[in-house]
Amino acid sequence: MAQQRTATTINGVDLETLQNTVSAVEQDPSLGKCKFRATNKWVGGAHNRSRIDDFYAAGEERNHQQPFELDADEPPMLAGDDQAANPVEHLLHALASCVTTSMVAHAAVRGIHIEELESEVEGDIDLRGFLGLADDVPKGYTGIRIKFRAKGDPENVAKLRRLAEFSPVYNTLTQGVSVDIEVEPME
Amino acid sequence: MAQQRTATTINGVDLETLQNTVSAVEQDPSLGKCKFRATNKWVGGAHNRSRIDDFYAAGEERNHQQPFELDADEPPMLAGDDQAANPVEHLLHALASCVTTSMVAHAAVRGIHIEELESEVEGDIDLRGFLGLADDVPKGYTGIRIKFRAKGDPENVAKLRRLAEFSPVYNTLTQGVSVDIEVEPME
Repeated sequence: MAQQRTATTINGVDLETLQNTVSAVEQDPSLGKCKFRATNKWVGGAHNRSRIDDFYAAGEERNHQQPFELDADEPPMLAGDDQAANPVEHLLHALASCVTTSMVAHAAVRGIHIEELESEVEGDIDLRGFLGLADDVPKGYTGIRIKFRAKGDPENVAKLRRLAEFSPVYNTLTQGVSVDIEVEPME
Repeated sequence: MAQQRTATTINGVDLETLQNTVSAVEQDPSLGKCKFRATNKWVGGAHNRSRIDDFYAAGEERNHQQPFELDADEPPMLAGDDQAANPVEHLLHALASCVTTSMVAHAAVRGIHIEELESEVEGDIDLRGFLGLADDVPKGYTGIRIKFRAKGDPENVAKLRRLAEFSPVYNTLTQGVSVDIEVEPME
């Protein structure tokens, strides 16, 4: 009997590829270790640019099929030229995109079909923290909310919320992470 | 005597604009409250796209001069088509760009001139967490490192490390933040 090849793709996720990664990591847990990277160069004022190219995963140094460039700037009221989204908006993109991908992939491996998925994310920051005007005001986000709307069987939609909790960016933000910063003089 | 207009810009940061924002927030602390936002739409598989347009700051709803679109995808080994940086790489861009902007702006208001500034950021993730293969393995980043190289007077470069700590993304990541996720059926 011929294999039903269409069954290997759900939600646009190639389950065979994903299963190969899962199997490899199951057999050798050390293959789970990944290092993701970016380099950034200040352009001027509030404008800077990151380049994303190589990463380490499944025991090997790897490269994306092409490098990606990402800009950041600030709106005029924060003394920028508004040529790109600002850093805290990029953080919201990282979060929304990660939760989306996590729900889609984990739904796929459970045989849960999603037809459409969209979200709105909003986060609160009090500028008094960043500006150094009040020591007791946090400098970062104090709360972030995401509302997803999903199209699919109602019983499938009800299963998605729990799958959001696999998201690496969601977990990084809610658990916190140590960030080590060094500044050296340029040679 | 004519005003020295050049003195109002340091590191490409317009100090008058920034000082106006600082003064406004000092006079009315409620003007510090900001809400940043993004909307995201799933394209298919690991590919999705955010749009960043409006935000709330200094007591008003505002719009960027133009909306910004940001894509996310995954490399082939994570069952994506590698059409964009992945979500955890976007998080590193958010961090590097925010620390850069924070150092540049806080240096400017202190009269510290920077000539060049670049950085490399790297973070560790163990895929066993995301893949659900080990409950005791964190799903997010377990450590992030940024190395900056700065060109300028050595005594100025030495002052930059402390200014990094004003960064909202740095503070969000190191302190953690509550993230509320809702999933509703699409109308």
